[in-house]
Amino acid sequence: MKKIIQGGRVATASDVYEADILIENGIIVQIGKNLSVAGAEIIDATGKYVMPGGIDPHTHLDMPFNNTVTDDDWKSGTIAAAFGGTTTILDFCLTAGEEKLSTAVEKWHEKAKGKSAIDYGFHLMIGDLTPQTEAELPVLLEQEGITSVKVFMAYAKEFQATDRTLFKAFKIAKDVGAIVMVHCENGSVIDELVEEARRAGHKEPIYHALTRPAQLEGEATKRAIELAHIAGATLYVVHVTCKEAVDEIIAAREKGYDVYGETCPPYLTLDQSALAQPGFEGAKYVWSPPLRPKYHQEHLWNALKAKQLQTIGSDQCSFSFNGKKQLGLNDFSKIPNGGPFIEDRFSILYSEGVAKGKITVNEFVDMIATNAAKVFGLFPQKGTIAIGSDADIVIFDPNVKREISAKTHHMNVDYNPYEGWEVTGEPVTVLVRGDYVIKEKEFVGVLGSGRYIKRQLKKAAETIKI
Amino acid sequence: MKKIIQGGRVATASDVYEADILIENGIIVQIGKNLSVAGAEIIDATGKYVMPGGIDPHTHLDMPFNNTVTDDDWKSGTIAAAFGGTTTILDFCLTAGEEKLSTAVEKWHEKAKGKSAIDYGFHLMIGDLTPQTEAELPVLLEQEGITSVKVFMAYAKEFQATDRTLFKAFKIAKDVGAIVMVHCENGSVIDELVEEARRAGHKEPIYHALTRPAQLEGEATKRAIELAHIAGATLYVVHVTCKEAVDEIIAAREKGYDVYGETCPPYLTLDQSALAQPGFEGAKYVWSPPLRPKYHQEHLWNALKAKQLQTIGSDQCSFSFNGKKQLGLNDFSKIPNGGPFIEDRFSILYSEGVAKGKITVNEFVDMIATNAAKVFGLFPQKGTIAIGSDADIVIFDPNVKREISAKTHHMNVDYNPYEGWEVTGEPVTVLVRGDYVIKEKEFVGVLGSGRYIKRQLKKAAETIKI
Amino acid sequence: MKKIIQGGRVATASDVYEADILIENGIIVQIGKNLSVAGAEIIDATGKYVMPGGIDPHTHLDMPFNNTVTDDDWKSGTIAAAFGGTTTILDFCLTAGEEKLSTAVEKWHEKAKGKSAIDYGFHLMIGDLTPQTEAELPVLLEQEGITSVKVFMAYAKEFQATDRTLFKAFKIAKDVGAIVMVHCENGSVIDELVEEARRAGHKEPIYHALTRPAQLEGEATKRAIELAHIAGATLYVVHVTCKEAVDEIIAAREKGYDVYGETCPPYLTLDQSALAQPGFEGAKYVWSPPLRPKYHQEHLWNALKAKQLQTIGSDQCSFSFNGKKQLGLNDFSKIPNGGPFIEDRFSILYSEGVAKGKITVNEFVDMIATNAAKVFGLFPQKGTIAIGSDADIVIFDPNVKREISAKTHHMNVDYNPYEGWEVTGEPVTVLVRGDYVIKEKEFVGVLGSGRYIKRQLKKAAETIKI
Amino acid sequence: MKKIIQGGRVATASDVYEADILIENGIIVQIGKNLSVAGAEIIDATGKYVMPGGIDPHTHLDMPFNNTVTDDDWKSGTIAAAFGGTTTILDFCLTAGEEKLSTAVEKWHEKAKGKSAIDYGFHLMIGDLTPQTEAELPVLLEQEGITSVKVFMAYAKEFQATDRTLFKAFKIAKDVGAIVMVHCENGSVIDELVEEARRAGHKEPIYHALTRPAQLEGEATKRAIELAHIAGATLYVVHVTCKEAVDEIIAAREKGYDVYGETCPPYLTLDQSALAQPGFEGAKYVWSPPLRPKYHQEHLWNALKAKQLQTIGSDQCSFSFNGKKQLGLNDFSKIPNGGPFIEDRFSILYSEGVAKGKITVNEFVDMIATNAAKVFGLFPQKGTIAIGSDADIVIFDPNVKREISAKTHHMNVDYNPYEGWEVTGEPVTVLVRGDYVIKEKEFVGVLGSGRYIKRQLKKAAETIKI
Repeated sequence: MKKIIQGGRVATASDVYEADILIENGIIVQIGKNLSVAGAEIIDATGKYVMPGGIDPHTHLDMPFNNTVTDDDWKSGTIAAAFGGTTTILDFCLTAGEEKLSTAVEKWHEKAKGKSAIDYGFHLMIGDLTPQTEAELPVLLEQEGITSVKVFMAYAKEFQATDRTLFKAFKIAKDVGAIVMVHCENGSVIDELVEEARRAGHKEPIYHALTRPAQLEGEATKRAIELAHIAGATLYVVHVTCKEAVDEIIAAREKGYDVYGETCPPYLTLDQSALAQPGFEGAKYVWSPPLRPKYHQEHLWNALKAKQLQTIGSDQCSFSFNGKKQLGLNDFSKIPNGGPFIEDRFSILYSEGVAKGKITVNEFVDMIATNAAKVFGLFPQKGTIAIGSDADIVIFDPNVKREISAKTHHMNVDYNPYEGWEVTGEPVTVLVRGDYVIKEKEFVGVLGSGRYIKRQLKKAAETIKI
Repeated sequence: MKKIIQGGRVATASDVYEADILIENGIIVQIGKNLSVAGAEIIDATGKYVMPGGIDPHTHLDMPFNNTVTDDDWKSGTIAAAFGGTTTILDFCLTAGEEKLSTAVEKWHEKAKGKSAIDYGFHLMIGDLTPQTEAELPVLLEQEGITSVKVFMAYAKEFQATDRTLFKAFKIAKDVGAIVMVHCENGSVIDELVEEARRAGHKEPIYHALTRPAQLEGEATKRAIELAHIAGATLYVVHVTCKEAVDEIIAAREKGYDVYGETCPPYLTLDQSALAQPGFEGAKYVWSPPLRPKYHQEHLWNALKAKQLQTIGSDQCSFSFNGKKQLGLNDFSKIPNGGPFIEDRFSILYSEGVAKGKITVNEFVDMIATNAAKVFGLFPQKGTIAIGSDADIVIFDPNVKREISAKTHHMNVDYNPYEGWEVTGEPVTVLVRGDYVIKEKEFVGVLGSGRYIKRQLKKAAETIKI
Repeated sequence: MKKIIQGGRVATASDVYEADILIENGIIVQIGKNLSVAGAEIIDATGKYVMPGGIDPHTHLDMPFNNTVTDDDWKSGTIAAAFGGTTTILDFCLTAGEEKLSTAVEKWHEKAKGKSAIDYGFHLMIGDLTPQTEAELPVLLEQEGITSVKVFMAYAKEFQATDRTLFKAFKIAKDVGAIVMVHCENGSVIDELVEEARRAGHKEPIYHALTRPAQLEGEATKRAIELAHIAGATLYVVHVTCKEAVDEIIAAREKGYDVYGETCPPYLTLDQSALAQPGFEGAKYVWSPPLRPKYHQEHLWNALKAKQLQTIGSDQCSFSFNGKKQLGLNDFSKIPNGGPFIEDRFSILYSEGVAKGKITVNEFVDMIATNAAKVFGLFPQKGTIAIGSDADIVIFDPNVKREISAKTHHMNVDYNPYEGWEVTGEPVTVLVRGDYVIKEKEFVGVLGSGRYIKRQLKKAAETIKI
Repeated sequence: MKKIIQGGRVATASDVYEADILIENGIIVQIGKNLSVAGAEIIDATGKYVMPGGIDPHTHLDMPFNNTVTDDDWKSGTIAAAFGGTTTILDFCLTAGEEKLSTAVEKWHEKAKGKSAIDYGFHLMIGDLTPQTEAELPVLLEQEGITSVKVFMAYAKEFQATDRTLFKAFKIAKDVGAIVMVHCENGSVIDELVEEARRAGHKEPIYHALTRPAQLEGEATKRAIELAHIAGATLYVVHVTCKEAVDEIIAAREKGYDVYGETCPPYLTLDQSALAQPGFEGAKYVWSPPLRPKYHQEHLWNALKAKQLQTIGSDQCSFSFNGKKQLGLNDFSKIPNGGPFIEDRFSILYSEGVAKGKITVNEFVDMIATNAAKVFGLFPQKGTIAIGSDADIVIFDPNVKREISAKTHHMNVDYNPYEGWEVTGEPVTVLVRGDYVIKEKEFVGVLGSGRYIKRQLKKAAETIKI
């Protein structure tokens, strides 16, 4: 089966040029002027960008959390991702205490099986390291092709690792050639601040933000950076939200440390005042780290422009407002933490970033796809448009305008934090390994056709520098 | 005329993949697996990198300076550049006082005419702004397709602009959409330090370094940054050498300022002790800013890795040791400032950077070609391997080792600062717009075939963000 | 003649305690409980602070400037100073071009003669250094007991020195043991910004602030710091107004540089909006550097608290609003630069600083008197309450409240920038060398009784570290 | 009983002047020229400094630690302190788990009773906060006049508090008006590094330093700073050793945070190489945080000069080399942590600081006495020479030279880390509340005559800003 994408404007992390693309057996085999191959299906991309499919390095589908489970599973989640131009997700596989790590990975394979419309991989979460899991970890990473582990410095009741465990994770990751992703917030102090606020009778969503000050993210980021550096490990700071954390990352990189940073659409575009809305409305904007006062946005954009933050994750973790969010109606600390962003990641970054002149289209591709592919060992199979790469391709119309709304989105959640926003630019057609998943804004994919991508620890080590 | 480069490993600023490249009429028209076109000449690149031709954004050919003139003219200079993998240079067109700017540009065209073996453009130097030159400047930039002006904060006798002129240059550049390149050293204080050293009877080359302390580069860099920012202009700091300057650039970029930085091979690899060698040997290493104490190298490499410096210029400015350098035999301040680097820019950066694991091959391409093309408005015509771009291509053997020596180099100068260094990786074949200039390490180009490249001020503005 | 100050609360830069003070022949000879000496006059200080007389290190009395002359001369100026608790001023002796420096000093002695009600010394301004003045400088400093020179980086038409002259001043000062005070603003760029604003037709006072952005103060501060450090000199940055300059001073001190900083009452308490008032009202607030946006105040207070700024100068330089300020009625650039602060320096710093809990009374004394005495070589003769020191003493009532007003102040100027402010704390009685100048809020001093204080260059060097 | 100290040079934190001092009933009642009182004993201080007695804010006498107990108890410890010019110590009262805090304080009173030759107070250590101890704490601080609590971020087996406990301690301290002293090192990661080193078979003392990298002190310092600031508390960082920690303290103070820093003689004068000596010799230099590479010293001196570190503690914690240090002969991690510094604090700081021109004698007094008195609520009773203050006085000969040696020192320990160092300046006579403790270099004090000093929480709050 051959396809030719014709007349589009190919955009990669470094280039933009007009050319046709020939796909054979799901692989990009030729790029050029006026390609013509007998029997090839022609896809017209005139006036549109032809981009690599997005890599979303940060999703939580069908995940038990905060005494409930996220509302998007691998079916609705990956369909929504595809609509949003994402062709590969990396989802966090949770582990728990004494349980064998491999059991957790099996469970995660089970969740995705028969449901995923796009390709995927896992990050492996590390909560506590018993002698058993410590021994199992390197073997499992190798076997499963997992090049990234995740450690939480917050959520004491559920995931939080001690500094010692975090440090051990860095040491092991360094030895096997994996990267460590860290949620940087000082969870212990947050727990005390939450208790204080509750004792004082505060119930409103805004207290979620007020009990998680930016300094505690900055502090934890600094801590993770120093521990990683002493261990010789590579650190990836997930969901950076504030000046305090950005400053630490920049200072570390200036010293030559191997540190990368991810931010997420809401931190670039929404602010803390969203949580202070009357009534329970603010619960729609409760996730962690929380939204910050508005001035932080400028620091994040500057850091993106200066290439000091490298990736954009969705941190998809959806809970319906009229459903699970209500658990926290009378107690802000019980509001499930998370929001639905898997679908609008492209639109928000393109519209607010490229269309408004903050970043170039090359930088956009780098942040939305290429850098994540390089950091997590998917490159060059994924994350670019190049000869030999998977034909994971988004045909993106940069001129169309649409309004974001829960009424029209494809996520299984009853609200959208961007409700009513008009955005510029939208994925029109999306291919995964040459097959249509989205065709002219219609889902035409096959559930379960998404493949689990094994990554190579060595390869990760080689391509990690971005 | 068609050519196919076969079996190589194509490397761009973001990608590396195996593919063939089809060239027609000097343009890259197709990239793909197993290309085959009737009548096309086949160039075998098996086992080699196929890279965009280098852009050297910083050369001084046939330039009067320090009471003499540089030893490499547009003939020897561009031949040496081609041997070194460079297919486009941007040379500094000097202007002087009351003289019409257009007269200076004509003179520069004259120098290149019939001699240049590769493509080229000019940066226009601004020394003093009379009402006449102030009026002429925007018109000339537009007419000549010059998107970059150069201002010196040092060399009082020859080039130094006042702060007021520098600021006016920033304002004009901002208005027309040009970029301002600044030599950042406090020339006035340096002149006093030089006088002091001479009064104290010091004659040796090392006093060149000792009278130009790194703090004076840091200070001037900060000054240029703030002036550019107030004017709303984009700043490109040439030949960054030290921690002091790097720190200022990083701080500015963190604040969202439009500031770019260039460094040069010697600052990454040589140090101040070279000037302290017995006798007059140190004169071989006299250029400005001077070589620094060794610890600065690490700061420069870290800044490159962290993408806070973006380009590598050669700052080619050659004076033969047994010839013109002797002018300073009895007075360090009379040693002509400059060194021969146009030929070994690729080799040094590849060998010390990529081969030693400091940077990736993508970063190498970005620094040696793509970023300069973007900053200076040559992109996408130059600086990348993409459909529709000029077929300026280097076939680079990453495994070959060679020894650098004045005996074998092609520059018209009797010494090489890297004499005896063994480097890994070498350009084997070099095409400019599809034509051989270097073929299997032999020069086969045609003097005068290099074209002057007009750049578009608007275009520069659009692609300037890298 | 003996006096005993009884029952007060003695406050020095480090101590606060209740004790009597015995003065003999203008000198403090005893401090203790229940002192009693036959024939001594008793001054009751119960319930009040007994502090060292203030040292104002920054005044411009009877100074030609901006095509006019300041409105306060040595008579009204020193009377007002005395009312304000200041017993010694250090005034800037202007020099000009080819004129012998000693001529300027003679002129300044002449201005003060028969008029000064309090003690005084001079700083010597350096504008340009001819071979003559360069030779004369060290001799004159020694002869006249001047330990401080002043260099301007702004005011091109009147005072501005080149970087080279500034650097030479640092070298000379270092050699003779003097300190260099620098007005840090990039005057050349300011001149261009002023021209631009005038060309654009802007006339209002606010353009004074808008054409002197804080970055140009930060830049110049950095420049002065590096030049001083290379020269090995001690730098005193006058009238620091903004975060940009504070940051540079702190960074320098962290590296061990000998740098001190002064700020002034208005920068701590007023802000840029004062210049934006309707009509010409803003002219009352025109001085240089200008008032800044309000957030800078916090940085200045923090720097004072953290002992990174050391002194408070008045920068007294008064022009009547209905008189000389009118020169700029139709052109902001012609408004004479300066304001009347010599009288309210104590009140503002005490009321806003001590009474509001920002600084302790010890820190107050240090900033208002002791540090300046140490930096400028007046210590321990001046600046403290200690055995053997001059009995320059302020009896200060910390509880009284008064309203600042031009109607009641003693400066020869028709407005007060603090008109209507209620302040807490006021000098009640002021002694200079044991003699009353102010007695129970009445001026009882003798014009011309103030003595010129010769300082010792060596002494300065010894006590300079504060 | 009256005494007159005659003819000395009185030195306080701000002044130096020649005067006599009259003491009555242990209080300084008069300072002046030529004092003469019938019946007063005359102490000749001609040619010597008369300084306030030293305040050592950091001692561990008779303290169980590392499976043993320190070798100096309140007898030998306070005698040695007195020889060294210290007249008041603040010792750390250890608490443990469930035990009532008051029980711990009683135990500490017991240790001192009948033994202390000088005055003293306690800091109260907080390890874990049970509901009981949390309730008891404010009451006890008030009752016992304790204004300072101590929290350890290291020593997991013995003292380490969790972040949550640390934060709670900050909150309580803020509420009652106490200051929190924190040992800033990441103990959890250190424990892992120690385990690693032991698994690798490392036994030598140098591994004590290598397993406690400076970054872990910097990280913990940052953490303590942010937690204190969020809680609104005042932080005192004990024993700062490195650039990493200094940088954090300076940055915090620049932002207006209430943070103070202490360093200790060895960090200013010794370096990590001391631990790398052949054999077990390095054990003499094992304490925590460890000695650092030499370049850190300059950062500490600069921070002292710039008033960013305020106090000098001895961190006295002595273990004899041929005795208890031998516990770690085969395992560096078992070497008891601590060294003997209570006696040479004055000599080292004066000799290396004042005599070598790094700091002034005023700064010396401030660091050795006044600042600690102010921070810890002893001022103005202690820490200065002022009317009404306790006559805790050191007559210090600035010219005498002596050699430090275990043979001659008075601490109960068989080695001295400064063995063989020649120092300039020595306390000759030491008075506590007017009584001789050291008279002409002989101990003439009375064991048990030292008084426990109750401090006032409110007072501490008032005078805390230094």
